[in-house]
Amino acid sequence: MLFAEIIRRKRDGSRLDPETIAEVIAEYAADRIPDYQMAALLMAVFFRGLEEDELRAWTSAMLHSGDVMDFSDIPGPKVDKHSTGGVGDKISIPLAPLVAACGASVPMISGRGLGHTGGTLDKLESIPGFTTRLEPARFRAVLRENGVAMLGQTENIVPADKRMYALRDVTGTVESIPLIAASIMSKKLAEGISGLVLDVKVGSGAFMKTRARATELARTLVAVGAGNGVRTTAFLTDMDAPLGNTVGNALEVRESIEILKGCGPADTTELTVVFGAEMLRLAGMATSIDDGRSAISSAIASGAGLDKFRKMVAAQGGNPAVADDPGLLPTAAHTVGVKPSRAGFVGSVDCAGVGIASLILGGGRRTKEDGIDPAVGARILARRGEFVGAGDDLAVIEYNDDRNLAEAARIIRDAFAIVDAPSVPGPLVIDVISSSSNQR
Amino acid sequence: MLFAEIIRRKRDGSRLDPETIAEVIAEYAADRIPDYQMAALLMAVFFRGLEEDELRAWTSAMLHSGDVMDFSDIPGPKVDKHSTGGVGDKISIPLAPLVAACGASVPMISGRGLGHTGGTLDKLESIPGFTTRLEPARFRAVLRENGVAMLGQTENIVPADKRMYALRDVTGTVESIPLIAASIMSKKLAEGISGLVLDVKVGSGAFMKTRARATELARTLVAVGAGNGVRTTAFLTDMDAPLGNTVGNALEVRESIEILKGCGPADTTELTVVFGAEMLRLAGMATSIDDGRSAISSAIASGAGLDKFRKMVAAQGGNPAVADDPGLLPTAAHTVGVKPSRAGFVGSVDCAGVGIASLILGGGRRTKEDGIDPAVGARILARRGEFVGAGDDLAVIEYNDDRNLAEAARIIRDAFAIVDAPSVPGPLVIDVISSSSNQR
Repeated sequence: MLFAEIIRRKRDGSRLDPETIAEVIAEYAADRIPDYQMAALLMAVFFRGLEEDELRAWTSAMLHSGDVMDFSDIPGPKVDKHSTGGVGDKISIPLAPLVAACGASVPMISGRGLGHTGGTLDKLESIPGFTTRLEPARFRAVLRENGVAMLGQTENIVPADKRMYALRDVTGTVESIPLIAASIMSKKLAEGISGLVLDVKVGSGAFMKTRARATELARTLVAVGAGNGVRTTAFLTDMDAPLGNTVGNALEVRESIEILKGCGPADTTELTVVFGAEMLRLAGMATSIDDGRSAISSAIASGAGLDKFRKMVAAQGGNPAVADDPGLLPTAAHTVGVKPSRAGFVGSVDCAGVGIASLILGGGRRTKEDGIDPAVGARILARRGEFVGAGDDLAVIEYNDDRNLAEAARIIRDAFAIVDAPSVPGPLVIDVISSSSNQR
Repeated sequence: MLFAEIIRRKRDGSRLDPETIAEVIAEYAADRIPDYQMAALLMAVFFRGLEEDELRAWTSAMLHSGDVMDFSDIPGPKVDKHSTGGVGDKISIPLAPLVAACGASVPMISGRGLGHTGGTLDKLESIPGFTTRLEPARFRAVLRENGVAMLGQTENIVPADKRMYALRDVTGTVESIPLIAASIMSKKLAEGISGLVLDVKVGSGAFMKTRARATELARTLVAVGAGNGVRTTAFLTDMDAPLGNTVGNALEVRESIEILKGCGPADTTELTVVFGAEMLRLAGMATSIDDGRSAISSAIASGAGLDKFRKMVAAQGGNPAVADDPGLLPTAAHTVGVKPSRAGFVGSVDCAGVGIASLILGGGRRTKEDGIDPAVGARILARRGEFVGAGDDLAVIEYNDDRNLAEAARIIRDAFAIVDAPSVPGPLVIDVISSSSNQR
């Protein structure tokens, strides 16, 4: 079929058959379809969507554009977790070692910071010596021995997604739920896992601003996972305030270590426990969420999770002593408190503002080429619903370079809405959508 | 503004301001916007449309991407007519000389055959020696002296449309009414005219299959014309059967000469008269359509139109004797009649089929590089509503090469629906939409 005819069919709302979709993606990956035709098709998909079987074919073709890992020679279940991205979201860092400590393997491939949200790789690399690149054979050996590895994507994993994402970014076709789902799921399916927990963030600081959109994305992701034989559960979680009490790379690793030690903030600890519990349930290593919660909590209490983290850091070239002495992590030279605009109760907190403040302090990239300062960021002192006096600090900025300090402080101050009466924050976990029935 | 942001705004249904649109088109024409971004924007326009002021800005920017003719030094009004394309549609050829004979100037820029529809340039070039290319100075001199010239588009007329049309053709974005309107009107406005008649074909053989779509296009074209200071009238005319009694290049020139002599078929003569009348009215040279009809009919009866045609042919290098001896036009070596599938009344006639039959006989191009045989085509003998016996001819094929003869004959036979009772064809002119009030 002529490619222009394929575009017209999707444009006019016809379903494309799976063979056609497989061919389109394969031809695009092989550079035999020009970007201008793919851009038109992507925009047609934006408007018309993809039906379930179209999306399954699209994702599968993306997946098979590159290497698909096979860990079937490593005993036991392999599971993973993916977040759509938030501010202060360091959950993967304590989560992966905890789940591994409970006996499931976690071959986690993560990303870098995007926009105002941080990236797990950038955070891990604040650990002195830590590398997020391992040769395939070494990855396999580490996973077999230690049950956990946290790496960056290689060139050979879903190469079609790299090219397509770059095209979507400049053609206004990022915000399409099936295209987001295909991009996420093709990369996760390439990990050779049998269970997947997805954290779909919803709220002002998230990519999905409304519960309806987040629910649609969650359902779509779960359907693609199930359609490809992976037991998948999506949690809709709140992103109307930053997660935990730190934003910034090394600062978030410190908080991760606190979670592993059982002294982390309530919200990040709770998400770690619930996601870990569900990963164990999907892995068949817990009979219920409650059973899973017990196992994760025990791994925190016993120090087994922290020990697994120590081994993971060592296996990936980092200094394992950070687990016991977080002072070995990079530390900013200066700190300054940010006062509220007036006394009152903390209402909503604009996550994007907090994320951007950390970014302009040097904690994130404005362009792909920027380096980052691992030490800088913000510690959040005032949480939603709490009273702050005019002289109290909302947050403490940790900085090395004062060039953007005043702007960062202003952005953080403005990010905290101060209201006259305390509001009760909504639940952290808003909804759960699963392909696998859930006995809680 | 980032171009991706412009795409997103149109995608999400926001209006783009005219300055933004002007910049987009200018940058695209200057090759500073890649095709993949323009393809995404065009698809967003397909879904979201363009509001009246957006379309006016889009058309104006297309127009100013190249040369705009200025004939203000040539006395009197300049008017033109454009058809969206049909089968057997040779109206421009008798029309332009007739209107010029009545005193208005007609600087007509026409196109070549597209798909199953013929092109005025291909038809005119069947006249021995006739050229559709004149140097700008010569064009101006001919127009001043003779009041009519029928030419092809030059590289410098609306170059943005050339690039954009080629992109639309391969990205499924041809069938967008605002984009069609911008493409047509930018080229017509470049002619420096003050009045324009548009023939919007509707029916199975037309680009616009339904009256609703054709009406939408007609209204859009008229609004763009009026918004750019050109008095514009669109006629919706029937394309559920080929126009006149010939399809094929030289055959259609013969019929054009018959129209000029007052002995053409009723339908093509009627369209010539009504379009000519409206062009004179828009030019301010007739007080009403009826007044205009009288003038055009007189120019036929007096031979003034035929004389103008003779002069036009001579001015453009052709042999003017064809006006008096059509036998000087190329003639096919062979003819064969096409019998109906059974005896009965002629119902609808599939124009596309008749057009394709002429094309495969050599009368049109399958690829841009194909040459054409000016002599071949079909004479239509049976008209809608007429009875044909099993031994009667529906049409006579004129051919030189018998390679595709059997297929062409089969296509023509199948194009004629034979029904049991005579149906009355609908009106030729279905509707009239004008920016200029119409005293008929």
